[in-house]
Amino acid sequence: MRKRPLILVTNDDGITAPGIRTLIKVMNTIGDVVVVAPDSPQSGMGHAITIDATLQCNKERIDNGPQTEYSTSGTPADCVKLAVHEILERKPDLCVSGVNHGSNSSINVIYSGTMSAAIEAGIEGIPAIGFSLLDYNWDANFDPLESYIKIITNNVLQNGLPSGVILNVNFPKLEKKDIKGIKVCRQAKANWIEKFDKRQNPQGKDYYWLTGKFVNLDKGNDTDEWALDEGYISLVPVQFDLTAHYLIQNLNTWNLNG
Amino acid sequence: MRKRPLILVTNDDGITAPGIRTLIKVMNTIGDVVVVAPDSPQSGMGHAITIDATLQCNKERIDNGPQTEYSTSGTPADCVKLAVHEILERKPDLCVSGVNHGSNSSINVIYSGTMSAAIEAGIEGIPAIGFSLLDYNWDANFDPLESYIKIITNNVLQNGLPSGVILNVNFPKLEKKDIKGIKVCRQAKANWIEKFDKRQNPQGKDYYWLTGKFVNLDKGNDTDEWALDEGYISLVPVQFDLTAHYLIQNLNTWNLNG
Repeated sequence: MRKRPLILVTNDDGITAPGIRTLIKVMNTIGDVVVVAPDSPQSGMGHAITIDATLQCNKERIDNGPQTEYSTSGTPADCVKLAVHEILERKPDLCVSGVNHGSNSSINVIYSGTMSAAIEAGIEGIPAIGFSLLDYNWDANFDPLESYIKIITNNVLQNGLPSGVILNVNFPKLEKKDIKGIKVCRQAKANWIEKFDKRQNPQGKDYYWLTGKFVNLDKGNDTDEWALDEGYISLVPVQFDLTAHYLIQNLNTWNLNG
Repeated sequence: MRKRPLILVTNDDGITAPGIRTLIKVMNTIGDVVVVAPDSPQSGMGHAITIDATLQCNKERIDNGPQTEYSTSGTPADCVKLAVHEILERKPDLCVSGVNHGSNSSINVIYSGTMSAAIEAGIEGIPAIGFSLLDYNWDANFDPLESYIKIITNNVLQNGLPSGVILNVNFPKLEKKDIKGIKVCRQAKANWIEKFDKRQNPQGKDYYWLTGKFVNLDKGNDTDEWALDEGYISLVPVQFDLTAHYLIQNLNTWNLNG
């Protein structure tokens, strides 16, 4: 019999979030699962790492599943580093992050703690997938996702991923019968139009809350936003070589060295 | 006479760091400068944004220069959002971030608060440059950088940058006479081999400090690491469409939809 894969599970909503509990449940049917996740929500942390403070790590027992679990005081990227270099006996065969409560499609990938954990695993040479559901509610319905998470995970375990690439998977907020399937996509060119809600504290000093409106100006029908709008699950291959290679030749025509 | 450009200056080491004071000094010779920078160091913050807490913002007067300055309680990405949507009367012509005390070459771009501010500006449609010096010391010598910062900035103002691309500039720790010039490069494939320094607190509980060793396995002579080792200033065009476009065709051969 083929050896069961070792699967590292993490997220950014914290170890008790329903999204990660769903992911753990599905991964238990596929391999041996070790969970290393933040002890509290870390949304919007981007690819933050903890360099100026210490990290705590505690063994946890949250449900009766066969997985081993640890919570940490760190960011999602910290969790992966700690798992790989301190907790796990060997390099995992796969790292899955999520399921995030809320979208990480298009430009959200940049701000996402969920995706930063998956990218960190990719940097460590581990095939990795970030999963997100377009529903910010804590009691969102994750049931329709389970069979699709299994299909995508098994494909990654079977086919592998090229070095330097991880997957960003987003699920529409739909009943299972209304999900049309999985579409391989590119990241839509979209952004947030920020607005700051300016208030005064009781002492009369101004302070701000960040708010914003998501705007997709990309009309392509090959983007993650298009797929999600149409009822598909979007799957985007994400790379962490950020070089705009196509521009190098042009920049060499600039007058940089007198 | 041509109108002077409006230049937004930010960083991640905090508004009083010598690196940003150098950048402000140079930018004052080029345009009208508004500084919006963190009130305390934010290194390693990646692309974190503040969504679960409020932001404070204070007008500052740190030296006798002609610039306008604000400090904020937010991350570097927050500073850019706050500047563009709350503080500035119009969209700036340029955003410069840094000069960071320490390298943001190769994979460090992912963890970098300095670069996240520049990327945030890029997302907002503002030409942007992140500057970093390979010297972590607070009293690092920024003098040799000044003329080069001016050359690169003037090139960006003159030539513009394509939508979706910003520049990542790193300076070697060298005397001016030993700097060989500016090289347009790609991001080296390098990473950190993490080690956790495990200690016990006075109560006997384990805690960890993140440490690590930077390893460059990329032997190319067109990378930022190569250029810096050779005594050049590295200039990498950075994009925030993270899609690994080349892989989409291959992923479409996977068995994703039964």
